[in-house]
Amino acid sequence: MRAFSRDFQQDLRDLMRWRRDVRRFRTAPVDEALLADALGAFSLAPSVGLSEPWRLVRVDSDASRAAVLANFEAANTDALQGYSGDKAARYASLKLSGMREAPVQLAVFSDEDTTKGAGLGRQTMPEMLRYSVVSALMLFWLAARARGLGVGWVSILDPERLARDLDTPADWRLVAYLCIGWPEDDGDTPELERLGWETREPDLEVLSR
Amino acid sequence: MRAFSRDFQQDLRDLMRWRRDVRRFRTAPVDEALLADALGAFSLAPSVGLSEPWRLVRVDSDASRAAVLANFEAANTDALQGYSGDKAARYASLKLSGMREAPVQLAVFSDEDTTKGAGLGRQTMPEMLRYSVVSALMLFWLAARARGLGVGWVSILDPERLARDLDTPADWRLVAYLCIGWPEDDGDTPELERLGWETREPDLEVLSR
Repeated sequence: MRAFSRDFQQDLRDLMRWRRDVRRFRTAPVDEALLADALGAFSLAPSVGLSEPWRLVRVDSDASRAAVLANFEAANTDALQGYSGDKAARYASLKLSGMREAPVQLAVFSDEDTTKGAGLGRQTMPEMLRYSVVSALMLFWLAARARGLGVGWVSILDPERLARDLDTPADWRLVAYLCIGWPEDDGDTPELERLGWETREPDLEVLSR
Repeated sequence: MRAFSRDFQQDLRDLMRWRRDVRRFRTAPVDEALLADALGAFSLAPSVGLSEPWRLVRVDSDASRAAVLANFEAANTDALQGYSGDKAARYASLKLSGMREAPVQLAVFSDEDTTKGAGLGRQTMPEMLRYSVVSALMLFWLAARARGLGVGWVSILDPERLARDLDTPADWRLVAYLCIGWPEDDGDTPELERLGWETREPDLEVLSR
C-alpha cells in the first residue's frame, strides 16, 4: 500500500487552501502537454459502477465561444433581476466568469445514456452519473492548480441552450463549464469572500444519529 | 502565489491513482483527531456562491446503523432483479458496501434550502448545490487517503427512506453515504475492474467545437 508523508499531507492541505475559483485570467496560452497532463486526472476519478460518464468538449472556435458568452450574459442579466438594492449593486459589480480571457474552455458533460458500468450503483440514485463527473473534474482542478493553472467553474448558463449551441449528443447533460488558464492574481481567500458577498463558516458541524 | 514542486505533482498523481472505493475495512477504530483533520477538507471545498451546503450526519447508533443496512440490502436485492444470467451471478458475488465493518459512517446531505450564498450561481443550474457537496466530499476522500484511511461511497440506497430513518430536516437531500476506516487490502486497480465487472478506458477523449 502506497503511503504518503506528513509533508505531503501538509502540501495537499495547502493545495486545497490555495485552490480558487478563478475568474481573472491572463491571455497567455497554456502548453498543450501541461494541459493534457492535468486532464489525465479525469481518468483517475471514481465513477459509479466504473461508468466513466465524463464527456469533454473543448470550446475553441470563435462562433462557439461567442455563443457560450451570449448564453452567460443572458443568464447573468436574468439572475441580476432576482436581487434588489445593495445586493443588486454588489451582484452587478462581481466578475463571475473569465470567459472573455481564459485561453482554454471546456464544457463537461455527463453521458446519461451510457451502458458502461451496466447500471451498477445508480438504480436508486441516477444522479450518481453526474456526481461521478463532478468527482472527476474536482481531481482535474487540483491537478491543474498543482501546476499553477487556474480553473473557474461557470454555472450561470442555460445548460440546454449550451448543449444545442455546441451540438452535443441528446443524452449528454451539462455538468460544468470550465475556464482554464494562468490566473491574473491569486490568494487563499475566495473572491466572493474578499468582495463581501458571503463568508465561510469557521467550523464544520457534524450531527450524530 | 503558492507554488508546488514537481515531486508534489507526482505524489498527487499517486494519491489519485491509489485512491480506491473501499468496501473491505478492518474494524479497528479511527482516531478522532485524525478523522477531524481529514474532515477539515470539507471547509476548503469550492461551493456555488460560497453557499457551503454540505451537511454531515455521523451514523453511530446501533438502530441507525441497522436501518441504513436494511435500506442497502433492500435496494441491493432490487438491483439484482435487473440483471440476468452471468451478469446476475457476478452482481450477486460483488461486495458493494463496507457497512457491516466500517467503524465510521457518514451520511452527507445537501441543504437545498440554504440562504447562504444568496442564490448566486444556481438560478439556471440548481443542482450546483449538490455538485458543491460532491466537490467537498472528493477533497475529504483525498485527505483521508493521504492519511491511509479508506473511503467507500455507497449509493445503493433509497435516499428518502434514509433521510426518514435518520430524521434529517426536510430540505436536506442525500448526496452520499460514506463508509470510512482502515482498508483491509488496497491496490491501484478498482475492485470492479479486478473482478471483471467493467474496465477503464485507457484514454480520455476530448471533442472540439
